[in-house]
Order: sequence, then C-alpha cells, then structure tokens
Amino acid sequence: MLKKIDHLGIAVKSIEEALPYYEKILGLKCEGVEEVPSQKVKTAFFTIGGVHLELLEPTSEDSPIAKFLEKNPRGGIHHLAFFTDSVPEELERVKAEGAQLIDQTPRPGAHHKEIAFLHPKSTAGILTEFCQDAKGGCGCGCK
Amino acid sequence: MLKKIDHLGIAVKSIEEALPYYEKILGLKCEGVEEVPSQKVKTAFFTIGGVHLELLEPTSEDSPIAKFLEKNPRGGIHHLAFFTDSVPEELERVKAEGAQLIDQTPRPGAHHKEIAFLHPKSTAGILTEFCQDAKGGCGCGCK
Repeated sequence: MLKKIDHLGIAVKSIEEALPYYEKILGLKCEGVEEVPSQKVKTAFFTIGGVHLELLEPTSEDSPIAKFLEKNPRGGIHHLAFFTDSVPEELERVKAEGAQLIDQTPRPGAHHKEIAFLHPKSTAGILTEFCQDAKGGCGCGCK
Repeated sequence: MLKKIDHLGIAVKSIEEALPYYEKILGLKCEGVEEVPSQKVKTAFFTIGGVHLELLEPTSEDSPIAKFLEKNPRGGIHHLAFFTDSVPEELERVKAEGAQLIDQTPRPGAHHKEIAFLHPKSTAGILTEFCQDAKGGCGCGCK
C-alpha cells in the first residue's frame, strides 16, 4: 500500500537561481545541497507538511534532468515519489495489475531510501517512483 | 505561512483513461468526478497522506488545460497548490518579496476553498496556487 507522497522531484536549470523562490516566496528552509554523481545532478531539499521538495539541477549534458529541461526549458516537476513500507511488495502488486517497471527490484536512492521507478508507459503521464526507508540504515550512521 | 501541499493539479486527456492507473496501480479511491464549467474542465479527486490529487480533463479547446496538453501531450502536473490559513496575508507577504500575482485577492475555487495563483514568471517553473478554506463554508452545507 502506498502511504503518502514522499517527494516531488523538481527539475531546475540552476539551484542558485531557484533558491530565492523556495526560500523567500514559499518561505521554506533549505535542508541541504549535495551532488549525486551517479544521477549527474546537484540537489537541494526542502520539506513542507511532511512532503519533500527535491530540486534537481543537471551536472552533465547527458543527465536525465538535462534531457527533461531540453523539452521543458522553464523547468517543472520531473517525478512524483510515493512512500510505502515495502517497495518489493508494491512492485509485485503493480506488475500483477499489468504495470511496466523500470526497476524490477529496489535500488539505493538518496536520503537513505530504497527506490524503484515505474515505466512512464504505465503511469498516465507522470514519471513515478516508489520508495521506502533503507533497511538497517545506509551506513552513514543515520539510523 | 504555507502549511502543506494541498493538492497537485494533474492534466490528463481523458479521466476515463487515467482512472485505472490511479485506482489500480496507485491503489487510490476516486472521491468524485465533477464538471467545473467556469474552468472548462472535468475533475476527479483522490487523496493520499492528506494531499489531494486532482485530475483535470479539458471540456473545451480553449480550456487552460487543453493548452497545457498541446505542449505536453502525455499530460503531467499542471499546478501545485499550497495550503495556508490566510491567502490574503500570503499574497501581501510574497508581493513584498517581489513576486508577481495572477490573482490580487482570493477567489472561490473548487472544494470549498479560496484560491489565488502566482504569476508563472515568479515561480521558478511551476504554476503555483495558494489556497485556504472558505470562510463560513461555501453555501453547500459542508461546514
């Protein structure tokens, strides 16, 4: 069962340029900026009402976010992530319902999560991720 | 102060075609389908973790949602709405921060809300709405 929206992944050309909107206009506190080399992005995090907003700036021209920005030059919501207690169970459930998957099993994501993406063909227009807390923590001492 | 994400407005070509994804794959319950003639849309509502998902299907070629779908044929997230106790106070606050507004004062929205949109020039790429509960209810007996 999906429990809540975990985060919105938001593509931006420049975190530096987007920050004033999130901090001053939305009044949110930036919880950190970090680079994720495996995804070729720099990210900045905010939280409102238990939902995270994750800004994603490409660090390479072949980043998936760079490709998204080619089609959407002003930026926008790149993906929607739902939290569940068990990503494997959800993947089995949606496969039985006929959904196509990008990830057949969960893989490590940012923020001590295990994640899996559904194939866009199966998601009515929005790139969709399922995520859960990583079992036993992620080795950084967070749990 | 913005308190939480109230809803995501999601443009779809056809609610009928999108419903199986939201009901069977995401496992959500459709809380209603209704037409909003003033916005030239038909809508379907879901809730997960206190956040509403609002599907928006255009009922006219000059609907704003029809224009969004021309640019985004597969559909996608059309707007992001934040809940606050006072839309007028938030509008004053963001104007002082330099934001441009579409609505200078709140206007009635769906679901017994008062709403106001910020101008996309001021929102880092995502059409953004502020909303609050309508004072004294909306006359439908809901409050």
